[in-house]
Amino acid sequence: MSDIAALGAQAETMIAALAKISAEPARLVRLYLSPEHRRAADLVAGWMREFGLTVSEDALGTVRGHWPGNGARKRLLIGSHLDTAIDAGKYDGPLGVIAGIIAAEHFVRAGRALPFAIEVLAFGDEEGSRFPSTLATSAACVGAFEGSTLALTDRDGVSFADALERYGKDVAKIPAAAYRRDDVAAYVEVHIEQGPVLEAQDQPLGVVTGIVGQSRLRVTVSGVAGHAGTVPMAHRRDALSGAAEMALMVERLAREHDGMVATVGQIAALPGATNIIPGRVDFTVDLRAMSDAARLAAVAELQARAQKIAQARGLAVAFEPFHDAAAVECAPALQQGLAASISALGHRPIHLPSGAGHDAQMMAKLCPSAMLFVRCKGGISHNPAEYASPADMGRAIAALIHFIEHFEPR
Amino acid sequence: MSDIAALGAQAETMIAALAKISAEPARLVRLYLSPEHRRAADLVAGWMREFGLTVSEDALGTVRGHWPGNGARKRLLIGSHLDTAIDAGKYDGPLGVIAGIIAAEHFVRAGRALPFAIEVLAFGDEEGSRFPSTLATSAACVGAFEGSTLALTDRDGVSFADALERYGKDVAKIPAAAYRRDDVAAYVEVHIEQGPVLEAQDQPLGVVTGIVGQSRLRVTVSGVAGHAGTVPMAHRRDALSGAAEMALMVERLAREHDGMVATVGQIAALPGATNIIPGRVDFTVDLRAMSDAARLAAVAELQARAQKIAQARGLAVAFEPFHDAAAVECAPALQQGLAASISALGHRPIHLPSGAGHDAQMMAKLCPSAMLFVRCKGGISHNPAEYASPADMGRAIAALIHFIEHFEPR
Repeated sequence: MSDIAALGAQAETMIAALAKISAEPARLVRLYLSPEHRRAADLVAGWMREFGLTVSEDALGTVRGHWPGNGARKRLLIGSHLDTAIDAGKYDGPLGVIAGIIAAEHFVRAGRALPFAIEVLAFGDEEGSRFPSTLATSAACVGAFEGSTLALTDRDGVSFADALERYGKDVAKIPAAAYRRDDVAAYVEVHIEQGPVLEAQDQPLGVVTGIVGQSRLRVTVSGVAGHAGTVPMAHRRDALSGAAEMALMVERLAREHDGMVATVGQIAALPGATNIIPGRVDFTVDLRAMSDAARLAAVAELQARAQKIAQARGLAVAFEPFHDAAAVECAPALQQGLAASISALGHRPIHLPSGAGHDAQMMAKLCPSAMLFVRCKGGISHNPAEYASPADMGRAIAALIHFIEHFEPR
Repeated sequence: MSDIAALGAQAETMIAALAKISAEPARLVRLYLSPEHRRAADLVAGWMREFGLTVSEDALGTVRGHWPGNGARKRLLIGSHLDTAIDAGKYDGPLGVIAGIIAAEHFVRAGRALPFAIEVLAFGDEEGSRFPSTLATSAACVGAFEGSTLALTDRDGVSFADALERYGKDVAKIPAAAYRRDDVAAYVEVHIEQGPVLEAQDQPLGVVTGIVGQSRLRVTVSGVAGHAGTVPMAHRRDALSGAAEMALMVERLAREHDGMVATVGQIAALPGATNIIPGRVDFTVDLRAMSDAARLAAVAELQARAQKIAQARGLAVAFEPFHDAAAVECAPALQQGLAASISALGHRPIHLPSGAGHDAQMMAKLCPSAMLFVRCKGGISHNPAEYASPADMGRAIAALIHFIEHFEPR
């Protein structure tokens, strides 16, 4: 069995090095195709080379570290992402990339011939913090990148296409980023749980059964702007009051369904002055559930209830869905392999769904995919308080190494 | 009687010229101490000079056009403001400045000796669109400018003091901007009503009885940021849900009191990403009433109810009042003079309170002050649809000229 303490310490050192790369000194913000993404990708590429992997970078900026094994054609892909949420924690994403690099190094150093190659992937667009899209980089690997993504703009009005060009990338080469199905055996991702289950079960590692489906929509509420002092309350068509009522409705709707969550994460009132009744409010809704049918029904119900609220207030409301991801089941054979590796470490494998989206759900379109969850403190993520212990990270990497040792490509 | 059509046409031409001066091509935005403020001030100063007034500019950028009359010490001040709301109409503010200039020209051209001087004032900070303050420029004229205002910052982090310096002003000269009480006879301001009363009464002009009191506060709701997919609804401390409940409470509170209005005009959720539960929300409240006692009681009640909402949701809430203006009664003698002038034009003077704040409420600390309201379409203001007809503007200027002719300084 690998030296868990040493693996954990190595992971912690690398996590800390990546966490220093931020657009802001006071909080962690590493956006896709930003200068910080460049620095993080270069740091990761350097580690890969140092550990004996052959490095390439595809047309969307995904860093790929390849080790040929015994020269077999099939690759076991191991990856996660380098971009972060805004004011993020340091484990969400980087842990999976680092776990892949350290596990690969184990086999490179041992000179062990495996009947498959290993390829570690560092994706760049999982969080959707910069552009109103997610999983664009893994979509390219799968051959599912949508051309319309290129026209999306960030908050500064920079398009996805322009950002790619500034990053030194060639849009024409995106199709070439797709793997051929015959070249890929499976995809495995190590990730912090971002939820409270493993901690509550007092176990360090979990096997993900599936990833919840997600719907995201932009909601625009339109009323009539006016002077905050002279328009009587009864005559107002205040877009913000309507949006507030809708935000509370979204919360209630999710509470009505077991296991469903819904979030209003962004809101903006226009024109946005203290002394002007808002004439327009834009907000986002993120709604998730394991059942696709329940999720789609809830999105329809949400729109119907919002229309009722708008009508009662003399407002108009419009919906723009911008993300719809079906729930994804993890490959049963890979789940069994991960569970066996956790058991081999002397732990009880916990089987649990993922409430968060991950690159694994996109990679599942290409090949059998699975995820190994790592316990995190308080279930907190997307927050500077996010924490996974070096011991648990070491256990995750040891389990990954065990999994690779016993993996049989089909 | 003056030629109302000619006065109205002249006013309309000048209004249109000022409306072209905006920071944005698609909407009217003219912020205090901005390059657009400079251009508007220069245009107004040019008109003043052309019409025979002696122009000066004080330490806060207020343009002053002086005509000595018969050389008497006492001045009749006539003014309004050049700054605008965001996405504003073109009459709110400029009409009062232009009415003053055109009325003064009438006496300059006629060579009429009056037993007082006329001084037209073009203020720069009435709307509070740039800094979280209002009436700073008229406060300086009154000797009530507060030093703490200098530290306020705009959305780009530029302080009031820095903005003044970039505008070429010397902070040390602010005290010298204050009028001596003995030099001032009265202040009169012409302004669009910004409400529906005159239109409903089918009358072009109104005499303002008083200006409602205002309270403005910033409210900060603090919860716990978290992952939008992994934190169950029951475990959330979502600052935006709390803020939404508070915004609806503010609306209900105002509706409970006759004549009271309350507005949430700005709102921001942090960190502000689609997939993160907001950990903090900041919003503003603007609450107005003619009764100061009712207003202050409502602000206290608002805070108590917000605290209850926060407690029930495991959130914290903090309040930062940043504007508190007592209701102001207009000088009865001036009200009578304005009513007589409206009657002399053949109209029925409507007496009504102002739901909006105005420089007149600040000037009332210095001298007897009054306002003449002009009918505007649909009561709409702070909106590009804001409109006053040339005929009504001509009537307002004719009434102002009549008022000046009959004004007797005491």
